[in-house]
Amino acid sequence: MPVSPFGPVPLTPTAFLSRARAVHRDRPALVDGNVRRTYEELAQRCERLAGALAGMGVDPGDRVSVLAPNTGLALEAHFGVPWAGAVLNALNTRLSAGELAYIVGHAGSKVLLVDSDLAGLARQLLAELGGDVRLVVAGGADDELEALLAAASPLQVPVEDELSLLSINYTSGTTGRPKGVMYSHRGAYLQALAMASQTGLGARSTYLWTLPMFHCNGWCFPWAVTAAGATHVALRKVDPERIWRAIREEGVSNLCAAPTVLTGLANGPWADAGPAERPVAVATGGAPPSPALLARMAELNFDVTHLYGLTETYGPAALCEWKPEWDDLDAGEQARLKSRQGVANLVSQPLRVLGEDGDDVPADGNAVGEVLLRGNNVMLGYYRDEKATREAEHDGWFRTGDVAVMHPDGYVELRDRSKDVIISGGENIASIEVEQALDSHPAVLESAVVAEPDEKWGETVAAFVALRPGHTVTEQELIEHVRSRIARFKAPKRVRFGDLPKTGTGKVQKYVLRDGLRTADPAD
Amino acid sequence: MPVSPFGPVPLTPTAFLSRARAVHRDRPALVDGNVRRTYEELAQRCERLAGALAGMGVDPGDRVSVLAPNTGLALEAHFGVPWAGAVLNALNTRLSAGELAYIVGHAGSKVLLVDSDLAGLARQLLAELGGDVRLVVAGGADDELEALLAAASPLQVPVEDELSLLSINYTSGTTGRPKGVMYSHRGAYLQALAMASQTGLGARSTYLWTLPMFHCNGWCFPWAVTAAGATHVALRKVDPERIWRAIREEGVSNLCAAPTVLTGLANGPWADAGPAERPVAVATGGAPPSPALLARMAELNFDVTHLYGLTETYGPAALCEWKPEWDDLDAGEQARLKSRQGVANLVSQPLRVLGEDGDDVPADGNAVGEVLLRGNNVMLGYYRDEKATREAEHDGWFRTGDVAVMHPDGYVELRDRSKDVIISGGENIASIEVEQALDSHPAVLESAVVAEPDEKWGETVAAFVALRPGHTVTEQELIEHVRSRIARFKAPKRVRFGDLPKTGTGKVQKYVLRDGLRTADPAD
Repeated sequence: MPVSPFGPVPLTPTAFLSRARAVHRDRPALVDGNVRRTYEELAQRCERLAGALAGMGVDPGDRVSVLAPNTGLALEAHFGVPWAGAVLNALNTRLSAGELAYIVGHAGSKVLLVDSDLAGLARQLLAELGGDVRLVVAGGADDELEALLAAASPLQVPVEDELSLLSINYTSGTTGRPKGVMYSHRGAYLQALAMASQTGLGARSTYLWTLPMFHCNGWCFPWAVTAAGATHVALRKVDPERIWRAIREEGVSNLCAAPTVLTGLANGPWADAGPAERPVAVATGGAPPSPALLARMAELNFDVTHLYGLTETYGPAALCEWKPEWDDLDAGEQARLKSRQGVANLVSQPLRVLGEDGDDVPADGNAVGEVLLRGNNVMLGYYRDEKATREAEHDGWFRTGDVAVMHPDGYVELRDRSKDVIISGGENIASIEVEQALDSHPAVLESAVVAEPDEKWGETVAAFVALRPGHTVTEQELIEHVRSRIARFKAPKRVRFGDLPKTGTGKVQKYVLRDGLRTADPAD
Repeated sequence: MPVSPFGPVPLTPTAFLSRARAVHRDRPALVDGNVRRTYEELAQRCERLAGALAGMGVDPGDRVSVLAPNTGLALEAHFGVPWAGAVLNALNTRLSAGELAYIVGHAGSKVLLVDSDLAGLARQLLAELGGDVRLVVAGGADDELEALLAAASPLQVPVEDELSLLSINYTSGTTGRPKGVMYSHRGAYLQALAMASQTGLGARSTYLWTLPMFHCNGWCFPWAVTAAGATHVALRKVDPERIWRAIREEGVSNLCAAPTVLTGLANGPWADAGPAERPVAVATGGAPPSPALLARMAELNFDVTHLYGLTETYGPAALCEWKPEWDDLDAGEQARLKSRQGVANLVSQPLRVLGEDGDDVPADGNAVGEVLLRGNNVMLGYYRDEKATREAEHDGWFRTGDVAVMHPDGYVELRDRSKDVIISGGENIASIEVEQALDSHPAVLESAVVAEPDEKWGETVAAFVALRPGHTVTEQELIEHVRSRIARFKAPKRVRFGDLPKTGTGKVQKYVLRDGLRTADPAD
């Protein structure tokens, strides 16, 4: 091919803000508490954020961490950090100071932007980390960031290589230490287009930020909502009452949330006030929505779509795409179809389910295998961890570790998630990390942690512990011990004591533990 | 950046058929007269078309021309030809044999696929061209293509480089000889995503093929409709009665057409039968829809969006994106807003209007300049014409030659199209080509051809002719002379005789001729 004088133009999701600024300049971009910003204002703030970062010595390629709930700061960081040419590292606000210190240290961030509500946690993490990360507090009485923005010049560092690093999202995988999942500008651009298109976002849409932006960069919705020229509604705290208030007052049309959040919305005085005036398109993931929940959400004027993905796939690489032909089925059959993880999204390659023999399993809804994903919305790899990257790869495909069947109609359904990850309330918890915390207690000989099905949280952490001879400890003491070492939400809800079942070679038989916990689906 | 083991995966619009096959396999892909095909069937046919082409000696990179109305053949060629690794050259069925021979010869096509209705024209063009292009007739009593498909093995040559050549579309530009506009796999993929998203295509949509697929590959809708999992409805002839029948019988939800086609739909017995049952989203381009037409279309349940682009930009690079705030304006104001060419589409860079001083004109709705376009949906260049490619480029931007203003709200409105191109009924006509045909008549001293506003066709060709002293010729004789040399639709509708107005340096003052033709907008 001759080199074209016209391009290619590097793909970057920040281009969607440039376009929204040109097209939707005076239209509402962001509602953040009492603050309302147009797209022109949002773009200007992001440009000044980029300029302010450069003024602090952030060079292209440097990392910038952000610790914030779903506020304007979190959204602006998704454009301002890349406009500085820097790499965004959005931090999970639920982690402990020690965990956050590990992440910020591993990412090698130069700057930490923090919401004033979390300034204490940020100072604690920086104390643990040492080094000279520049802390900038946003909001509160003495709003340092606002002063920097006011003084900054606008900046947009152009993207030279669309495969360059846009963000690093740390995930608890199957090993204890979180791994840094690397997103490229190209991948986020394409995933954002898929999300905007497949959740029906448009200039009339109002998107409520229930899904944390620190989860896979909010499944790329900071860019998707902006691409559509829709309105972002920030939400500082995921609380059913606040969500309902936003839905009714702002006319929310779209949100993403784990089923546990939906369960909260479905019940309580806020729901008794009647269905949402405007239909709300809900994308949910992390666990299949139950038939009872789907029925209740429909009554409340919520249309739920089930999506599936991982941090490594920019969020949902798959969705249970609804077929018009299913409209006429009865509610039970519809719920069964909807509970499946589904098919490739618009920019993903068709999903594969690989059996132990290395071949694709037959599409019979019965044979199980591992889900493999491929597409531009698969990560570049794990940051500074070539070994883990290699292990996650099979012939160019990403190995999810999730076990599924392929149905005759081509839709995938998970049978078991990756055995060493528990998803509770939408958060990934690595069982090994909890086991290490348990094992550090002097009374514990060995432990095994598995997921326990839970109506509210999807799953909770269940611990099985064998004690050292002559030692004693209570369930509550062990739970507190874990909480003192890792994030509170990772601590087991229950601890069961006794010998652990093992294979002939001494490996703990987790499936025996899981089978003992399995109860009938309470929603059936 | 470390090289990722996961990709990137080359972008190609044929991936949308692979996905549709996986997701929508048993759903309707194509209605072509009495033939109905599912996505699985369509994909199989396209794979066998690729295999059949390879069997005829078509190697990756070879060109394959297609001469067909909007039938299954035209659609299948948009996937089957690239799956052979070959380059698609879709031919305008309205051109003369001589013009087509030039194009097929310039493209260097190895195979010509032709619909049986056009077999005579194809044989004539091959006779004029000479050489050994392999002709394959599809349809009719002795369906050669069908036999080849039945015997072929399925084939999908993978795309190695997303910037490689997908198709060549010949356009009448400002010079007489058509130029071959080169599309890449990447560009068509992104343009298709923009078109699907911005015209609201989804799995419930039914798309009627009124826009010829040989125009900019149907604005990339062969791929966009497939990406959405919607149904293609083929249409052999653009005729209001047939269009209305398809709308009513197939439940059409989307179509693209020039305003002249819409005018035909708006009036006549077919329209008197009442509005379309299902709302029809119409994308129109080539000329702004008039307020009267918009009002009438709204009555008939058609929602018209005005788009703007050129062959060089994969079809519409811009659209008059509707803002929710405009819903409350009166019909006249809405029509005025809608008649503007608008803003960048989802994957385009924001439009520029460059004044003669080389700076962007002020956004005052008054200062005129040339529209410049940029994005991955700008052509690679003109095939085997580096000079023309260079001339069309300015600092990485594509020079449209169209003259426009930028309104204060950021929307672009054309004031004058490229001075040497006339768009009649959606077809581009190069004035120089018509002038050369006129000048070849022995009685003609010199000629000038300009666009004449026309309610039905948008524009028609108006000729001004100065005769050689002592010669005579009639208007009708000259029109017939032109028709004998180039495509009939390019012939002038009227010929005016007399001296041509000229500048001091002897250049014809076309603006004087145009000004004399301008009449008040008949729709006002």
